[in-house]
Amino acid sequence: MGKNLTTRKEDYSKWYNELVVKADLAENSGVRGCMVIKPYGFAIWEKMQAGLDKMFKETGHENAYFPLFIPKSYLSKEASHVEGFAKECAVVTHYRLKNAEDGSGIIVDPDAKLEEELIVRPTSETIIWDTYRRWIQSYRDLPLLINQWANVVRWEMRTRLFLRTAEFLWQEGHTAHATEKEAIAEAELMMNVYAEFAEKHMAVPVIKGLKTESERFAGALETYCIEALMQDGKALQAGTSHFLGQNFAKAFDVKFANKEGQKEHVWATSWGVSTRLMGALVMTHSDDNGLVLPPKLAPIQVVIVPIYKGLDQLDVISEKIGPLVKELRAKGISVKFDNRDTHKPGFKFNEYELKGVPVRLAIGQRDLENGTYEVARRDTLEKETVPADEVVAKIEFLMDHIQKNIYQKAFDYRKEHITNVDSYEEFKKVLEEKGGFISAHWDGTIETEDRIKEETKATIRCIPIDVKEEEGSCMVTGKPSSHRVLFAKAY
Amino acid sequence: MGKNLTTRKEDYSKWYNELVVKADLAENSGVRGCMVIKPYGFAIWEKMQAGLDKMFKETGHENAYFPLFIPKSYLSKEASHVEGFAKECAVVTHYRLKNAEDGSGIIVDPDAKLEEELIVRPTSETIIWDTYRRWIQSYRDLPLLINQWANVVRWEMRTRLFLRTAEFLWQEGHTAHATEKEAIAEAELMMNVYAEFAEKHMAVPVIKGLKTESERFAGALETYCIEALMQDGKALQAGTSHFLGQNFAKAFDVKFANKEGQKEHVWATSWGVSTRLMGALVMTHSDDNGLVLPPKLAPIQVVIVPIYKGLDQLDVISEKIGPLVKELRAKGISVKFDNRDTHKPGFKFNEYELKGVPVRLAIGQRDLENGTYEVARRDTLEKETVPADEVVAKIEFLMDHIQKNIYQKAFDYRKEHITNVDSYEEFKKVLEEKGGFISAHWDGTIETEDRIKEETKATIRCIPIDVKEEEGSCMVTGKPSSHRVLFAKAY
Repeated sequence: MGKNLTTRKEDYSKWYNELVVKADLAENSGVRGCMVIKPYGFAIWEKMQAGLDKMFKETGHENAYFPLFIPKSYLSKEASHVEGFAKECAVVTHYRLKNAEDGSGIIVDPDAKLEEELIVRPTSETIIWDTYRRWIQSYRDLPLLINQWANVVRWEMRTRLFLRTAEFLWQEGHTAHATEKEAIAEAELMMNVYAEFAEKHMAVPVIKGLKTESERFAGALETYCIEALMQDGKALQAGTSHFLGQNFAKAFDVKFANKEGQKEHVWATSWGVSTRLMGALVMTHSDDNGLVLPPKLAPIQVVIVPIYKGLDQLDVISEKIGPLVKELRAKGISVKFDNRDTHKPGFKFNEYELKGVPVRLAIGQRDLENGTYEVARRDTLEKETVPADEVVAKIEFLMDHIQKNIYQKAFDYRKEHITNVDSYEEFKKVLEEKGGFISAHWDGTIETEDRIKEETKATIRCIPIDVKEEEGSCMVTGKPSSHRVLFAKAY
Repeated sequence: MGKNLTTRKEDYSKWYNELVVKADLAENSGVRGCMVIKPYGFAIWEKMQAGLDKMFKETGHENAYFPLFIPKSYLSKEASHVEGFAKECAVVTHYRLKNAEDGSGIIVDPDAKLEEELIVRPTSETIIWDTYRRWIQSYRDLPLLINQWANVVRWEMRTRLFLRTAEFLWQEGHTAHATEKEAIAEAELMMNVYAEFAEKHMAVPVIKGLKTESERFAGALETYCIEALMQDGKALQAGTSHFLGQNFAKAFDVKFANKEGQKEHVWATSWGVSTRLMGALVMTHSDDNGLVLPPKLAPIQVVIVPIYKGLDQLDVISEKIGPLVKELRAKGISVKFDNRDTHKPGFKFNEYELKGVPVRLAIGQRDLENGTYEVARRDTLEKETVPADEVVAKIEFLMDHIQKNIYQKAFDYRKEHITNVDSYEEFKKVLEEKGGFISAHWDGTIETEDRIKEETKATIRCIPIDVKEEEGSCMVTGKPSSHRVLFAKAY
């Protein structure tokens, strides 16, 4: 096809890295671990943002903005939190550069050292709870339901575009509640919002579940998550929602007067998804020809490629498709008419396949004569000839159908890749030969979890929300277990 | 009115500071110079973003995202640029914290020192032009029209909410062109886009002009600007658009092959507006009762306050206004029905005046009997009784009328505050007694400009785009001058 893309079978990891760059989603920058999100990739992210933002607002949340910097002492206030983030953070120590006196160039001015170092936020619980202390006095101020769209920095040593970068974009919700029950309900609600977004907008099926203690967010009492499965059989954590108990309220002394006038500590949640979702989107649907995008997130939903000899023919085609473009746009469908005379149709076909445009229309001399279009769908690569007066209905049908079809395909793949196993031998065999999620009994201890991770690189992705009670024994230690958990190798 | 707001006459500066906090726009954070943008303030900023983003896209620009960090060596590549930003930047020197061995707490890990320091972007020309070198090969890649919404950091010593903060939110456009002429046209286009946004959305009249050499952006050949006038007679630079020539293309070696196959350096522009616009919005329209917001940017355009005795009456009112709320929302008007039983109508009236909600509807027992509403507009504080069947039309009229009225009011104020003067004595007198823009002849030298600034604190805000040729002599030195320029004290 002329795309020079490594196939998934040859090297899945290389396929992904190449695809992200060649499809103009993102690339590495001159700054270690930081990516540039290119316009086409950013247009997809903007659609994700818009979809999520709408859902957040519909569930009563408001946006706000908190500082990029966190004083070192703030980060230290919640013990397990600093433990989790101190090892990988960017530290601002000075506030000025100057010309070196020896003429060697621009240096950090030693006279401009900060009294207290500032951490570039890896997540904002501490700076936000320091603010909430001023905002929350009474039960009337609760619940406080706030979200922030922001960049965060975690100094990762091994980075991959979208999946793991030093700087990434995300949203972080931070809510405060009068009761434990309400806070837990909020954490669960947001897990459900994330799952709905993943499934309905991204067409990515996810499993909702709870993290084990060792996989929890630093500072959380409970971490809810959504887990997706990539085409190489590895899992990807696509979003998390944390019940934080009163940990941050206690660390930052945030109390409210209840209806009886008594002071109580507030209950908290936080929840986030990031540009990592872009990685999940790419790896769930795309194929050896390039991206496959769900219509709901595709920056260009329909591309029209004219096939012509000479600019006269192009003029005739342009005139013909004018009203069609108008009609589609009026229906809210984004259309691009690619009339570039510098590139041949075959080149354009390749390009839009690589970029995952859901539907391609081609129109040439014969179509003009017959009053037809060639309609090609990206997901199945099927083509058909459609009469001009049916083409709008066809496209509307495809917008809906492609969205559902790629979801179903991913759902079927996942269904085939959830395997129940009852022995550690079988576990290792399935993990090696088939991958995917493995549902197995575990004795509930960190020791066994660590041992499995060390020996197989598989981690417990989650205890599914809808897990069934089932008497069994741990596949490793044989100790009793009351339900299965889901293991997988993961991104 | 119970708002306890300092009046503008008493202390304009204090009035502004109090209003920003009391109207829930923003507040200072625990991090020096960094603000928290509160949900109500952020909702206004979101509307600004949406309006500008639409205009950028309609003029052919795409969004992308570039790294937060800039290697020190990048910043140094363009000489006047580093000169302009080195004195006030946040420098990341380390990438890890650790527990002090003496148990004194969390410290910066001296073993995690970066080989090259990273600057938190004060603006992104350098990191972006380092990227453009990879993106631009041929004239076919041009023009490259990209915008980024981002946070930036400039280590200001004296900060004020929205007007001057260490971290602020902004958009920065960075474009690349094949010819000087195209780049200049782009810089002018974006100045016009900013002016249109300020006038049509913010209802803030602005003067379009060119900066003098000493007021130009660090690295620009020409800086276009829009200048607004605040109610205290001080000017505020509301947006800038820079023609950068080939400075950054040369510093980062960005060349393209022209149609003849010859390599040429690319021509550049950059342009930006920031959360500073929030300050301009507040200071242009608001009064001693609080914010006055233009309907186009008001998060709540209409608030409905029920006046009732007992919850039975509230129920009757709620039922009555249900269809009205629905009808208004269907017309795209944002409505809040404040049925809180914890606060009295007078308290609510105050609150929404303070927050600048353009239209307030009140409905009580008498209105129910008469089939009327009390409609109050925030800009003039006028009230009238309107029959129920005319209220929707009245509100639609007011949405448009208030927008125009507050623009006209600001326009008239500015018109009264542009004074032509022909002597330095008169200049100082007008500056002291009246303020506003002063239109005067200047000899075109930096020396005279500096002297005026030192002696009067007034700066040249701009050479207006529509300036008329007029023979005259510099009010300070008497040297010949061919046109007037606009001076003012400025934020």
